[in-house]
Order: sequence, then C-alpha cells, then structure tokens
Amino acid sequence: MLDFDDIKLAHTRIRPFIHETPILKSESLNNLSGAELFFKCENFQKTGAFKARGATNAVLSLSKDAINSGVATHSSGNHGAALAWAAATSNMRARIIVPENTKQVKKDAIVNYGGEIIECASNLKSREETLQQLVKDTGAYFVPPYDDEQVISGQGTAALEILEQVEDVDIAIIPVGGGGLLAGCLLGFSEDKVTTYGVEPEGADDAYRSLQTGERIPEHNPNTICDGLRTTLGSLNFPIIQNLVKDILLVTDDEVVRAMYLLWTRLKIIIEPSCAVPLAGLLRNKDLFSGKRVAIILSGGNVDLTQLPFH
Amino acid sequence: MLDFDDIKLAHTRIRPFIHETPILKSESLNNLSGAELFFKCENFQKTGAFKARGATNAVLSLSKDAINSGVATHSSGNHGAALAWAAATSNMRARIIVPENTKQVKKDAIVNYGGEIIECASNLKSREETLQQLVKDTGAYFVPPYDDEQVISGQGTAALEILEQVEDVDIAIIPVGGGGLLAGCLLGFSEDKVTTYGVEPEGADDAYRSLQTGERIPEHNPNTICDGLRTTLGSLNFPIIQNLVKDILLVTDDEVVRAMYLLWTRLKIIIEPSCAVPLAGLLRNKDLFSGKRVAIILSGGNVDLTQLPFH
Repeated sequence: MLDFDDIKLAHTRIRPFIHETPILKSESLNNLSGAELFFKCENFQKTGAFKARGATNAVLSLSKDAINSGVATHSSGNHGAALAWAAATSNMRARIIVPENTKQVKKDAIVNYGGEIIECASNLKSREETLQQLVKDTGAYFVPPYDDEQVISGQGTAALEILEQVEDVDIAIIPVGGGGLLAGCLLGFSEDKVTTYGVEPEGADDAYRSLQTGERIPEHNPNTICDGLRTTLGSLNFPIIQNLVKDILLVTDDEVVRAMYLLWTRLKIIIEPSCAVPLAGLLRNKDLFSGKRVAIILSGGNVDLTQLPFH
Repeated sequence: MLDFDDIKLAHTRIRPFIHETPILKSESLNNLSGAELFFKCENFQKTGAFKARGATNAVLSLSKDAINSGVATHSSGNHGAALAWAAATSNMRARIIVPENTKQVKKDAIVNYGGEIIECASNLKSREETLQQLVKDTGAYFVPPYDDEQVISGQGTAALEILEQVEDVDIAIIPVGGGGLLAGCLLGFSEDKVTTYGVEPEGADDAYRSLQTGERIPEHNPNTICDGLRTTLGSLNFPIIQNLVKDILLVTDDEVVRAMYLLWTRLKIIIEPSCAVPLAGLLRNKDLFSGKRVAIILSGGNVDLTQLPFH
C-alpha cells in the first residue's frame, strides 16, 4: 500500500526534471469566494499538465531491461504527451497508442515531444488488443494513465510543493477523473491535516457514486465538457480516496464554464475545463470554505483555442 | 525634457501600489526564435495592463487642489480602467468619458474599479467637447492616455523592473500605439545600453512613418486587429522615440495572430493582440535578435473571450 513516503521519494526523484510551478492569487476571486485562494498552476508544468509528474516518476522507476525496451501507453491527451516527453528526457522510446480519429494537433504534440504514434480503432477492444500486441512484440513497459503506483506517487508531489509554497493550508480542492492526482495528493497531504475535497462533473460522477455505495462503479457514459475527467476511477486509486478524502463534490457543466471564464479573465491564464471544476465546486458550496486558506490545483492548460465554450 | 531620473522617481512613487510582474520564459519559443526570450508579463499587472503604472504615477503626482476635484480621461479601454482604479486607490473620483457604443463589459470594468462613466457620441469632436465641459464644470484634472509626462514616466518603470529581474539584457522589444510605453521604457533603459525596438502593425504605422520622415504623422485610418495600438503617436512621445529608439519594425495582422497563438499555447497565458506584436516583429526579423537576450513586454491581458481570432 502506498503512503506518504512514496510521495516524498517520488519528489526527490522527479524534482530535477519538472517545474516547481507557481502559486497565483487573486484579490477579486478571494472576494467572490469568501476564502483565501492559492492556485497551484500545473498548466505551467512541463507539457502543460500535472501528468508530467507521474510520467517522469514512472520512467525514472524502471528497471534496466525496461529502459532498453521503452515505454508505451494509450492516451491521446495529456498523459500520452507527458509520457513521450518523460521518456525522451531519459533517452527512451515511447510508443503512444491513439484512436485513429485523434486530432492532428494532439498527435503533433506527442511527436514533437519525441513519441511514436500507433493508431488503433476508436473503441476499447481495439485499444486493449493493440496495447497487448505492442507489449508482446516490443517488450515495451506499459505506463497506465492513472491506475499505477508510480504514476499516483508522481502526481502526489504537487501536494508536497503546495505545502512548501503556502503556509497553513486548511483545505485543498482537486479534480477527479481516474483519481491519480487526487489519490497522490491525499497521500502527500496526509501528514499535514489538510482537509481535501475531490470535485467531479455531474456527467462523470463515478467517484461520487463509488464513494456513496462503497464499491467502485465504472463510468460507462461520461457526458461532460471536462475531457480530462471522462475516465473511470482506478482500482488502486479508489481505496486511497475512500480512506482519506473529506468528500466528493459535484458540479454542472454550466458551473464549470462560469468558473473557467472567471479563471481566464481574473488570473489571465489558460486552463482546461477540467481545471475549473474545483473552483466551481467551491462557489457552489461557499459555506464549506468560508474564511479558510484553500489550495486549488489547476491541472493543465492544453486547450483547443478554436473550440472554446465562451459565447 | 524627461530623463532617466523621472522614471526612477516614478518607480519609487508607484512601487507600493503596483505589482512587480513576473518574467516568463519558454524553451520552445527560444528554440523557435533563436534568441533567449524574457517575457515581462504586464497582463498580470493591476487592472490587467501596464496602464496601471502611468495612471498611478499621474494620480500620485497631483497637487492638493486637483486631488479634491478628481481626475478625468477619455478611454473605453485599459487607460480608463487603470485611471479609475488608480484614483480609487487614492480615494479620488475618476470620471471616464466613453463613446456611447462602448461594450457593457468595458463599462462594467471601469465602474467595478470605482470610476464614473460619462458617455459621449462616438466621434472625436463630441469626445473633446465633453471633456472640456467636464473639466470646466468639475475642475477635474485631465490625465491623457499617453501624451503626458507623468504617464510616460510611469510606463517606463516596466523597464527598470526588467533590469532588476533579468541580467544582461541585450535588446528590448516594445509595442507602439501612442508611444507612452515605448518612450518611457527608452528612458528607463537609457543608462544601461539596451538596444530597444518598437514594433507596430502595418495597418497603424504612424510611428514608423513619423520616424522615416522626421515629422509626426497622425494616424487617421488605423486598420488592425490590435485595438490597443490604433492611436496616434503623442507629441511628447515622438522626440523621445526619435532620439533613443533603434528602429521601428512592422508586422501584418496575420503575423500578429500567429504570434498571439504561439504565446497563448506555449506560455499558457492570456494576452491581447497588441501584446503579440513584439514577438511577431522578432519572428519576422530573426537575424536581428539571433543569440541575444531579448526582453519582450506583454502589455496587457484584457481580451473579449467571445471574439478571439483563432480558427
């Protein structure tokens, strides 16, 4: 079972390779929320998302054999780009499986970071088969997007940085998709008594339902603007979250877009819809956070600028 | 005649009230440009633009009589908002004249900072008459957007901060509209031998033409996406620029949009089209900047997110 020391070890390991991302503050958002907000800007992280942390930790934890064979994953998004970049930083091959209908700009990002694209049909069966065949043929080491101890430990280093950068954090709010960032940060905060909430879109509320029922419920039909949060909660991630999270809050897509607009216009930074979920959760539940010092992780900044939700 | 000491004095005066804005760097933009770039992020300045510097310096330089009567200006954009904010910070009234067709969101910004809106017809004659009448009736002190010694001195403090934040700056690149930021920064850099370029859109090239002919040529028909740069070069600004600038470079609107897209996607920050002009000028004239340490001022971040130029 993972614990605080795994996060600490991951931090020592990845620190020379990643950015210590800045904390931003906003007087007007403090006034609006009634809390003192500290935004941890992982949109400024290497590859534009916190995923660089987990990918780097996974790559740096490999055995010598694995290093020679390279790594592989399935992800057309931030994890795929992050693994391509992390592997290239260690002079390793990274093979990234993406659905054949993936946008060219996303494929270009993976290739620009040094990854090799392998296309599969746009369904789960083809993805699994392509991955299995690839691992069999090449010996590549599979680095899952979130359901993985090294990945979880890497993502948790964001919590340790927050503790170094902000004094007396009362509460942290973190978005939940597969649960890698939330599980890792819960462990990272576990020795400092930071009350930690997860927040999920109502259209992909598997973590919420899993927590309510006590059983992990897969997300079969996600329907949300938050493309980074459409995944199913991981099996390693769930017990950590179950054990340590204060609560999972829900938000609507409308609330997400309003929070995203606030973050863009007040902080003047580019963040993904998924990153607006924590602020949306806070604004919907102001009484939980009133007068507190609240850390909010802005998880990434890779947005299609031609498809923005502002009208 | 203004000199370096005016900028120094302005810095001492306004420093407690404004942000020391951060410098951002980008490996990928360094690779693309062949230079080492230091982005001075005035989009993170109070009110979202460098204009807070000049407005604060103007307000803090007023006599006691003027303080009681308040200040006034004509500007629906960053200067209007900045003056409203600066006046409120000193517990003064600010009356801001805006054309009657000004967007509600811009008027809201001025009012939220504590300014009072006065509408005029959307032409130069009505604006001038409204201002004259207002000054006559109220005794308000007129703070011009750029053609003013205190405003120029305030804007120049951005250069002093760059010199404190970045070692061994070789070159600075600055956008030119009315010329307040460029003239102020030229004075701010004047004791450190920083080669300084201005950059202008081809559709509003009055500074370029004025420098070529040696006579200030007003801009009657600006046609550019850079809404912050459609103004005419000021009469106080021109001789300073003529005396100290290395050159004025020109860029097309297409080049501006490409540079803006690069800045949004690589730096993950929100900047106005006007702010992309210096990077566009660099990318069009790479040989001038190759291998140099180049400071680029990103002048503001107040963008209408429903009207972006990305397709």
